[in-house]
Amino acid sequence: MAGRFITLEGLDGAGKSTQLAAVRDWLAGHEIDALFTREPGGTPLGEKLRELLLSPDTEVGLDTETLLMFAARQEHINRVIRPALESGRWVVCDRFTDATFAYQGGGRGVPFERIAILESWVQQGLSPDLTLLFDLSTEIAAARMALSRELDRFEREARDFHERVRQAYLARAAGEPQRFAVFDASQPPDAVRAAVQARLAELLPEAVR
Amino acid sequence: MAGRFITLEGLDGAGKSTQLAAVRDWLAGHEIDALFTREPGGTPLGEKLRELLLSPDTEVGLDTETLLMFAARQEHINRVIRPALESGRWVVCDRFTDATFAYQGGGRGVPFERIAILESWVQQGLSPDLTLLFDLSTEIAAARMALSRELDRFEREARDFHERVRQAYLARAAGEPQRFAVFDASQPPDAVRAAVQARLAELLPEAVR
Repeated sequence: MAGRFITLEGLDGAGKSTQLAAVRDWLAGHEIDALFTREPGGTPLGEKLRELLLSPDTEVGLDTETLLMFAARQEHINRVIRPALESGRWVVCDRFTDATFAYQGGGRGVPFERIAILESWVQQGLSPDLTLLFDLSTEIAAARMALSRELDRFEREARDFHERVRQAYLARAAGEPQRFAVFDASQPPDAVRAAVQARLAELLPEAVR
Repeated sequence: MAGRFITLEGLDGAGKSTQLAAVRDWLAGHEIDALFTREPGGTPLGEKLRELLLSPDTEVGLDTETLLMFAARQEHINRVIRPALESGRWVVCDRFTDATFAYQGGGRGVPFERIAILESWVQQGLSPDLTLLFDLSTEIAAARMALSRELDRFEREARDFHERVRQAYLARAAGEPQRFAVFDASQPPDAVRAAVQARLAELLPEAVR
């Protein structure tokens, strides 16, 4: 069976890490060899750019940030994601291009058509087979984040920023309903976990579900 | 008088550094306050990206390199070049976007239209007032090498690469003859210097030449 490409998306505080564990458990339970990675990051260059981008004292312009994201993504795809998929492994990526549309596009106003051009250059037709979007009202997301840990630069942005990010995510999902599975992340984690694993099962051929 | 934006371009070995000194002397002689900078670099982010690009263990793909170049250029323009020009200073930049067209485009095959799109996003209409292109005949260089011995494969590749870079530079110059001044870098340095300084004088209002 060919490798599948799964991405996880959503606002910080939407329980993405918890559900990443649910994905991991499900794959292990089905003895599926999978690579876990994340964006920005996933390569030596990507990790260095991640440090730059998330550091509170690196203030970069908006378009600069978008170009850096796609530079890192290009390396990530060419060196990590494509080789893994071609070798038959599944790839699970914590955030991908939808996050650029949501954060840089919806959140910060980078024109969507610009992001779409960069997407087509860098991805060359590559698209996730399944994107798990954890949707959460911004009030709950903000409350959850404030409890847990120190906030990075993106997390410190105001609530209306989060609302724009959320709406951009939902618009992406509405535009590609086949690829997206949207989960109500305000539900109890076990309920979300069950829904996630049910959706993952649809990626398997019917005979082995 | 408003600041002018001057860039220097050309293959390595074409005497660009020598002529940069000629530009510096001319500006000093006319008591013109000028900022000297170069690409990539000129900002904290640019310096970090320069480190990344030059590090032997960071081998990046071609498109990645182009995106990183423009990310650095965006910061350079927004934080250094535009503010200086707006304050009335002249800006002299050792290599700029023409170098990306020549090296990444002509030399290494990144599509020119891709570079042009990134140029328009990042520069937002900003263009050098004058670009000094030091053109070096690769035929002469090749002939010199051929006197002594047969070229090995790498030398032939290097020659072909340089010829593509050169032709891309010349095509840029042909497309914007008002902006470009092309100098024959095989001429004696003093002759080139005199020609450069004569061309610089044309940037001044007639009354003060």
